[in-house]
Amino acid sequence: MNKKSKSSSALNERQGIADTDLTNSSSIDALKKRRQIQPSADELVKGIISGDITALSRAITLLESSNPSHLEKANGILKACLAYSNPSIRLGITGVPGVGKSTFIEAFGLHLISQGKKVAVLAVDPSSSITKGSILGDKTRMEDLVKSPNAFIRPSPSGSSLGGVARKTRESIILCEAAGFDTIIIETVGVGQSETAVHSMVDFFLLLKLAGAGDELQGIKRGIMEMADAIAINKADGKNMKQAKLAKVEFSRALHLYPAKASGWQPKVRLCSALHNEGIDELWNMIEDFLKFTKKNKWFETHRTEQNKFWLLQTIEDRLKSDFYALPKVKKALEIQLQQIQAGKTTPFAAAEFLLGLQIK
Amino acid sequence: MNKKSKSSSALNERQGIADTDLTNSSSIDALKKRRQIQPSADELVKGIISGDITALSRAITLLESSNPSHLEKANGILKACLAYSNPSIRLGITGVPGVGKSTFIEAFGLHLISQGKKVAVLAVDPSSSITKGSILGDKTRMEDLVKSPNAFIRPSPSGSSLGGVARKTRESIILCEAAGFDTIIIETVGVGQSETAVHSMVDFFLLLKLAGAGDELQGIKRGIMEMADAIAINKADGKNMKQAKLAKVEFSRALHLYPAKASGWQPKVRLCSALHNEGIDELWNMIEDFLKFTKKNKWFETHRTEQNKFWLLQTIEDRLKSDFYALPKVKKALEIQLQQIQAGKTTPFAAAEFLLGLQIK
Repeated sequence: MNKKSKSSSALNERQGIADTDLTNSSSIDALKKRRQIQPSADELVKGIISGDITALSRAITLLESSNPSHLEKANGILKACLAYSNPSIRLGITGVPGVGKSTFIEAFGLHLISQGKKVAVLAVDPSSSITKGSILGDKTRMEDLVKSPNAFIRPSPSGSSLGGVARKTRESIILCEAAGFDTIIIETVGVGQSETAVHSMVDFFLLLKLAGAGDELQGIKRGIMEMADAIAINKADGKNMKQAKLAKVEFSRALHLYPAKASGWQPKVRLCSALHNEGIDELWNMIEDFLKFTKKNKWFETHRTEQNKFWLLQTIEDRLKSDFYALPKVKKALEIQLQQIQAGKTTPFAAAEFLLGLQIK
Repeated sequence: MNKKSKSSSALNERQGIADTDLTNSSSIDALKKRRQIQPSADELVKGIISGDITALSRAITLLESSNPSHLEKANGILKACLAYSNPSIRLGITGVPGVGKSTFIEAFGLHLISQGKKVAVLAVDPSSSITKGSILGDKTRMEDLVKSPNAFIRPSPSGSSLGGVARKTRESIILCEAAGFDTIIIETVGVGQSETAVHSMVDFFLLLKLAGAGDELQGIKRGIMEMADAIAINKADGKNMKQAKLAKVEFSRALHLYPAKASGWQPKVRLCSALHNEGIDELWNMIEDFLKFTKKNKWFETHRTEQNKFWLLQTIEDRLKSDFYALPKVKKALEIQLQQIQAGKTTPFAAAEFLLGLQIK
């Protein structure tokens, strides 16, 4: 502010002294160099099918990359791994923040491992940015599960579009299965859209709930209840027990209002306390019943076929749309056409014809 | 079979005698000629905005035609009519067969006409073939309404795809509004998909139900209850009254389980007997309350804007898809790719890439 006497002003700052280098620059260089030596696709495939978790992680990182050469490599790995995928169970788990999802997945995962299973936990969370926000980002919340050699935990891939995030997660499932993981848990936060994506990649969909105050059914996202194969009411312990039991009755009644599922399975409600490790084994027994039931009536297999077809068509349609709306001519004209519709100067159908015509011109 | 003695065989048939002409061929020619003289687009527009129902019918027939030159003419008419569309109310009415939909629409329509309204009844029924099947095809079921000069009834356009049928119906709405109809009723049978299409072209969605035996909520199609702004329990008369009242309580409870509507409107349940003309006026009063409420909170207008945008994007996306899947190369390769996915030789994503690549080759 006072240009003339800046150095004598009280606002003057002294020249700082640079911090001395606290890190060993030669070891950083060595680390960088090591990172640059990427194993070949063949090496990664061999690693994955021998159960090497580092190879699995690296391959998933390639899948998640936006670099086209990485993607090409990833597709080769994926194709090679398809032949090695083991029969697995894919479980979707959802619930709003605060429901105790991390604690539940830890208790549930450890129970499965105690039963001789190998458990991979993936996440679909389109809201998480590159930096933070992923539910699984904070692995310290699943300390015991992380330590197990039979568990693999991977946070949500980053990405702005749900379609992209979902694709990456769904392909990661295949790699995890090739690496010998027989139980794949896909976690998501209750934001509605991502549930639909997760539902279309799993065999069984579990909704975690809490026994809250007031009307138990308020605030349930549109359609999520309908997707659930089971509702687990978590934190059913101590003082919460009475409310949890009431909630169980309410949810059971609500589930009966929905039309019968294509699987023939009648959704169930169970109580559990992940913190006290209560009800976890009963929940798993119920899922085993579900698997027996749906494998016997052939739904399990036909459902997976349908899911594959769904993802094929979905990917095609997403790409057709994104390619179209990315055309500069279309981008420009879309806004104008919308205004014209608003002003009653054209119909949505005539505007669509006009915009579609821009493709070939 | 016996070539030699065909004429002497017992299987021999005598030469038939041609029927004499029972119709006057010159009057048929005159009729054909008259039909060929189609009024011009301008004449039809003039007719429509002066409220001429014959002109309206003819323009809708052009809209429904698969002949490209008819379609072009129809688009011109549509564009001209947009400027004349009156503020209207668009009501969707659905209910399974047997619920008394025709009787209800007749009683309801006649009540509206007695209030000074002009009522157009259109249908969306993708299952109806060119010949029969449309709910409104049998106009004899709405004899009194048909006779009224203030009513216009049009059966569902034919078409194999719901998208096509929906487009035609939605454009017909605009023509009806230009012809001075201020209350547009869109009727559909409860087949799930067509409800969604109808819901996206109306301001208010009414679900007709019966008080049946047993659990009232069984058999309700996925998602239809959630769309309803009101449920009218029809045939609430005589011996049915007690059951209807019970059903009202059950439906009211069920409606409360759903998340709040964007309109801010709490869906209502009403009893009525279309046959005895009871409860029809109360139902209309409720719809008027809805209109006042949603016009005051601006939802009515924003909702219509959203619907226009929805139809624009929907039309574009339908066309992108149908154009893609109609490519001969894609048709051929799709089946093979699906088989390869099934055999575990490719992933849905790799197959999608492959198929999308066929577009440009």
